[in-house]
Amino acid sequence: MGLIVQKFGGTSVGSVDHIQNVANRVIAEKNNGNDIVVVVSAMGKTTDQLVGMAKELSTAPSKREMDMLLSTGEQVTISLLTIALNAKGYEATSFTGWQAGIKTESVHGDARITDIDTKPVSQELKKGRIVIVAGFQGLSETGQITTLGRGGSDTTAVALAAVLKADKCDIYTDVTGVFTTDPRYVKNARKLPSISYDEMLELANLGAGVLHPRAVEFAKNYNVKLEVRSSMEREEGTIIEEVAEMEENLVVRGVAFEDDITRVSVLGIKDPLISLSSIFSLLAKEHINVDIIIQSITDDKSSSLSFSIKNQDLTETVKILEKNREALSYDQIEWESQLAKISIVGSGMISNPGVAAEMFNVLAANNIVVKMVSTSEIKVSAVIDQAHMLNAAQALHQTFDLAGDLVKN
Amino acid sequence: MGLIVQKFGGTSVGSVDHIQNVANRVIAEKNNGNDIVVVVSAMGKTTDQLVGMAKELSTAPSKREMDMLLSTGEQVTISLLTIALNAKGYEATSFTGWQAGIKTESVHGDARITDIDTKPVSQELKKGRIVIVAGFQGLSETGQITTLGRGGSDTTAVALAAVLKADKCDIYTDVTGVFTTDPRYVKNARKLPSISYDEMLELANLGAGVLHPRAVEFAKNYNVKLEVRSSMEREEGTIIEEVAEMEENLVVRGVAFEDDITRVSVLGIKDPLISLSSIFSLLAKEHINVDIIIQSITDDKSSSLSFSIKNQDLTETVKILEKNREALSYDQIEWESQLAKISIVGSGMISNPGVAAEMFNVLAANNIVVKMVSTSEIKVSAVIDQAHMLNAAQALHQTFDLAGDLVKN
Repeated sequence: MGLIVQKFGGTSVGSVDHIQNVANRVIAEKNNGNDIVVVVSAMGKTTDQLVGMAKELSTAPSKREMDMLLSTGEQVTISLLTIALNAKGYEATSFTGWQAGIKTESVHGDARITDIDTKPVSQELKKGRIVIVAGFQGLSETGQITTLGRGGSDTTAVALAAVLKADKCDIYTDVTGVFTTDPRYVKNARKLPSISYDEMLELANLGAGVLHPRAVEFAKNYNVKLEVRSSMEREEGTIIEEVAEMEENLVVRGVAFEDDITRVSVLGIKDPLISLSSIFSLLAKEHINVDIIIQSITDDKSSSLSFSIKNQDLTETVKILEKNREALSYDQIEWESQLAKISIVGSGMISNPGVAAEMFNVLAANNIVVKMVSTSEIKVSAVIDQAHMLNAAQALHQTFDLAGDLVKN
Repeated sequence: MGLIVQKFGGTSVGSVDHIQNVANRVIAEKNNGNDIVVVVSAMGKTTDQLVGMAKELSTAPSKREMDMLLSTGEQVTISLLTIALNAKGYEATSFTGWQAGIKTESVHGDARITDIDTKPVSQELKKGRIVIVAGFQGLSETGQITTLGRGGSDTTAVALAAVLKADKCDIYTDVTGVFTTDPRYVKNARKLPSISYDEMLELANLGAGVLHPRAVEFAKNYNVKLEVRSSMEREEGTIIEEVAEMEENLVVRGVAFEDDITRVSVLGIKDPLISLSSIFSLLAKEHINVDIIIQSITDDKSSSLSFSIKNQDLTETVKILEKNREALSYDQIEWESQLAKISIVGSGMISNPGVAAEMFNVLAANNIVVKMVSTSEIKVSAVIDQAHMLNAAQALHQTFDLAGDLVKN
């Protein structure tokens, strides 16, 4: 007996049959005596199709119009799901983002939620109805339809759970939970029964891809209990909450990895003070995400800088650097692609020094050269050759006792 | 130099290529120095696809949810058209129905426009922008998305033209104008340069299909000058205004016809006073459109009644009548299908008695039996065997001097 927010992504609502399945999942939770708010994404390939049409008409469609266009995707899903629930004998009401009182910044394509008026949803819940809300979208102060950018539906669900003081927010996906590492590539990957927000945040940022980091941050800030679970399987998923149960006392909770990384080096920078901030401002302006940054002073008069980006951003990055060669006062640029980033995550690291050392030992024992390193309190990341990525993941997963058959010893 | 509202229907915006074409038409009018408001429908088959999905989920989907679902169709078109205009270097802004200030009754599926707040559209026009508005949709007092029912986009366009005091409302369709009769079936059908609201209203109601009667009524009430024209051809269309130019002094302006008509007769009604109103209330409640009605008192104690409906409504009509046999106090019902309605329309009829007689003479001369008759001040309709419909249309078109090679004598 409580209030549960459920979120179903694009794959889960990809067809009329899938929508029937989602309706059954919603009804099961309703029949448990809970009030239910459901947040849905656009059906499967809808967004791609809409983007495709826009691209046929313009190489650079206006962001306002893209929001207008893409927000129709979730609107189709909310009405179809509501129709399915009605047909199964359950009262339900659909809401677009603006109807659900979701207010955002006046930004298109990547707006943040600023406020939610809970009245529209609460009123329907009081009448005993299931409420279906379009994810990913909101309304700006000036009355424009906005979208929340990648992972937007996750954020909508968590934000609604926060303001409605829901007991839980269930994120339904195509995997059964959060794993110690990617089960598609690493044998013995094991589903975690629970994990802390910070650990999930590191894993989400490291490309584990189950849950968008913005949504996790939101959940952490408002202390929303999340569960990541499968929309197809009935088994329990992974709970994400402030203090995850540490039943296994593992220092490392997961191994994440990500390929298609390029390291760019800017050599012989004459005026490091000015150049450094300028470089990253210029890249940020073009929405190029810079991940690991390493600066080294080589002598009194010049320094060099390395940073990692996604392969796809290389051409644009080089163009920007070359265009601003004079202002940035450097000698030359170099780059190396075909790299990967591999990371270990776990809040136990804080009180366990030597974890990073152990990681480097394992990599060295496997003849894997570390090209860049980055650490946080609960994470160590290393950039290595892409060819060694899966070997490294296997070895680390084994070393830190994460494999399925090793736990509960 | 003025304000023009343009409306493009589903076929005109049926593909990305078609939308490019529409953008060019809009730009041509903008380059003439006009302010432009464009009203668009959903792309081609979109509505059918959405209805199809809803029908898979429910045999009787809620009307509120159908409005939620179908209103996405026009929202896709407005953004794509705006993107196309931007790509061609023209500033444009899209508006959903609710953003454009279009307020309706709290009815789903067939709402009427109650009011339009002109501010949002006017503000954009003042900035020199082309405004693109989603047809067919509005917002109810309680904040629900509503749709206007059949011909809804025509109505949106005319209503906007009325409140914005537009100089003209151009309705772009897949035909080049209003014809003296259906050019697909009758040789020598001729495009009318102009026609009055009342004449158009009769033609629209009689199944000429170019323009929805609700939109024509709206235009008449607010004196909005309409032009029906082709979205593909550049030629001039047909102007619809209060007093059409009578350059040819024709008594009859057009011949309309419609097949799939059934005549239903209710015989031996004991209490005509009660039964008549009851019958039509019962049918109206089930949204069955009754067209021609003929009542005849056969003797002191009972009367009989005939009325025409569309073939498709026959089963439901018979069911309703049989279910209420006792309350309606009649002896028996009969029906005849495979009928057609043929009509002549022209405001000149008012001052030209004998037009109806001439029509019946022509039909008689062609051995066509008239089974029902209905007249208004500017129209005569006759129900005949469907097999004779096109013959009758040809003969009447010829008799009343409407053929292309006979005019301007």
